[in-house]
Amino acid sequence: MPETSALRWTGGDTPVLELIDQRILPRRVHWRRYPARAGAAGVAEAIRSMVVRGAPAIGIAAAYGLALEAARHRRLGAAAARARLLAALPVLAASRPTAVNLFWAIDRMRALIEAEPHSGAALYQATAREACRMHAEDVAANRAMGRLGAALLPDGARVLTHCNAGALATAGHGTALGVIRAGRRRISHVWVDETRPFLQGARLTAWELMQERIPCTLITDSMAAHFMQRGEVDAVVVGTDRVAANGDVANKIGTYGLGVLARAHRIPLYVVCPVSTIDMATRRGADITIEERPAREVTGFGGLQWSPPGMRAAHPAFDVTPAALVSALITERGVVIRPNRARIKALMAS
Amino acid sequence: MPETSALRWTGGDTPVLELIDQRILPRRVHWRRYPARAGAAGVAEAIRSMVVRGAPAIGIAAAYGLALEAARHRRLGAAAARARLLAALPVLAASRPTAVNLFWAIDRMRALIEAEPHSGAALYQATAREACRMHAEDVAANRAMGRLGAALLPDGARVLTHCNAGALATAGHGTALGVIRAGRRRISHVWVDETRPFLQGARLTAWELMQERIPCTLITDSMAAHFMQRGEVDAVVVGTDRVAANGDVANKIGTYGLGVLARAHRIPLYVVCPVSTIDMATRRGADITIEERPAREVTGFGGLQWSPPGMRAAHPAFDVTPAALVSALITERGVVIRPNRARIKALMAS
Repeated sequence: MPETSALRWTGGDTPVLELIDQRILPRRVHWRRYPARAGAAGVAEAIRSMVVRGAPAIGIAAAYGLALEAARHRRLGAAAARARLLAALPVLAASRPTAVNLFWAIDRMRALIEAEPHSGAALYQATAREACRMHAEDVAANRAMGRLGAALLPDGARVLTHCNAGALATAGHGTALGVIRAGRRRISHVWVDETRPFLQGARLTAWELMQERIPCTLITDSMAAHFMQRGEVDAVVVGTDRVAANGDVANKIGTYGLGVLARAHRIPLYVVCPVSTIDMATRRGADITIEERPAREVTGFGGLQWSPPGMRAAHPAFDVTPAALVSALITERGVVIRPNRARIKALMAS
Repeated sequence: MPETSALRWTGGDTPVLELIDQRILPRRVHWRRYPARAGAAGVAEAIRSMVVRGAPAIGIAAAYGLALEAARHRRLGAAAARARLLAALPVLAASRPTAVNLFWAIDRMRALIEAEPHSGAALYQATAREACRMHAEDVAANRAMGRLGAALLPDGARVLTHCNAGALATAGHGTALGVIRAGRRRISHVWVDETRPFLQGARLTAWELMQERIPCTLITDSMAAHFMQRGEVDAVVVGTDRVAANGDVANKIGTYGLGVLARAHRIPLYVVCPVSTIDMATRRGADITIEERPAREVTGFGGLQWSPPGMRAAHPAFDVTPAALVSALITERGVVIRPNRARIKALMAS
């Protein structure tokens, strides 16, 4: 069985980006097709509505979205095609605010667009090639992180993970789940936080781990502390949507609470991400924009609404875990033990 | 509008216990009728399947269940009726294991049954009267706790509560929600934990607070830490299913985590319960039986299953918060600040 993936790309004359619709997984495996005419706007909408989610995956989806946009305009002259592509960048940037990989991908594409003035066709070739390169780089980075992270786990480790930082959240293999995949011989058991409200754990991480036949048990988010108290958790391993220059970590809502609980129980918290998730332009976690999503995602799930009509709900989609609670940051360039501003600066300069 | 209640009793020749079906609230307000022929077994099944839930409410429901059982046998002689009633006690006791109020109610009824040998009719009269007395006592206790607890809250307090310790969990008024009702002039806002997996917060507490027009916002359980971090929580107020003699508190899964988080953020944790919830026969929290409920309640909700088929799930329905994390225990006999074995012994002797 080929490894799970969030996205598939077919290039050439009639390019198509396919995204597995993560809103309906695991009930149904449905690949949504985005041809050239969908353009950047179609992919932006897929990101906003969470057809595709996970910081690295949305960065790569955005890059492919620009390649689709370039395909639409490949018969134009260089200047016209370039203007259309530059106009598409803010559309993608407006899709979701917290994950920095999106902006990193957009910046990388912008540099390319501005440097590639030959023709519309050349722009399409260049953007498609760059998106494929980012895709391959991300898989390679995840495999490197997996090896580095697995080495930190004790034999027989019982690992708790939150949300889905797996193949579905990345170009493949996964960040936190990449560590779990790479460490499967050391890991005796994985606790899967269900991760309300979007249930990424109950749906997506459960699905990936079952496909891999890695022993796992689903719990509600509120059970994590209980199993820590009973001594049944050896490490908490999560991904992240943005790491500030001081090491503060924005990740799926609930991560901060897990960080406090892990510290109280002397359990290490490992945060796994490619260096593209580290945002040196953000000084500290408090400066990260936290996306507020619709209340209806909290008052129910899918089509089902279980709260009384009119009930108000808050829905911050992310929270910020201070660097002081992070035992190690695991990147493809190396492991940063007890991350802080100086250690992250050194990593980025390496 | 009359205050919300979990149970209604009509005595006399054709007694009926009515229970509001809490599994389908707030979608539908449906009172299930338990006539004499339902007997203790019918009420035991209602407790097991969570038609009625909440420690004080299931104690009182069990008492009414015995009165229904007595009504079934009221034409028998004293010895035969008494034998039937004593045989019904273990049926009720087996319905749910954690809340001590159930066993307290059963013990109180047992004493009465053993002391009342006149006739089947007299047994019915006595058990029905006793159940009504327990019902009224619980409401009175909740009002007393409400007054005592409200006095602990600062003006403008933003209170977080978990699960439903409201009118629906008791004979009326509520324990934790009784404090919130009594303190409504001091309280500016209530954070309602949705309380997965049964969603007592999202469904029941939300419903009660909306009926009372108390300003409130629903959050997922994983958001509590985030709002504590932002300084938007002044107190955590919860009920409990059993307090051990040393002050350890068993309550809905998630309470222990809230206790650790509250302490880390220097927020007081108040536990509200009638003295009938304090179990002097249980030395410490570790001795409390934690009910393990079906995995399907975690892999989905209601008829909807969202995890992959075959996914394993854990479902401890309760956890234990050590007394050291409890800022005060609020009972109808008084407030125990920083509860411990000596202070609880003094309260029970008072």
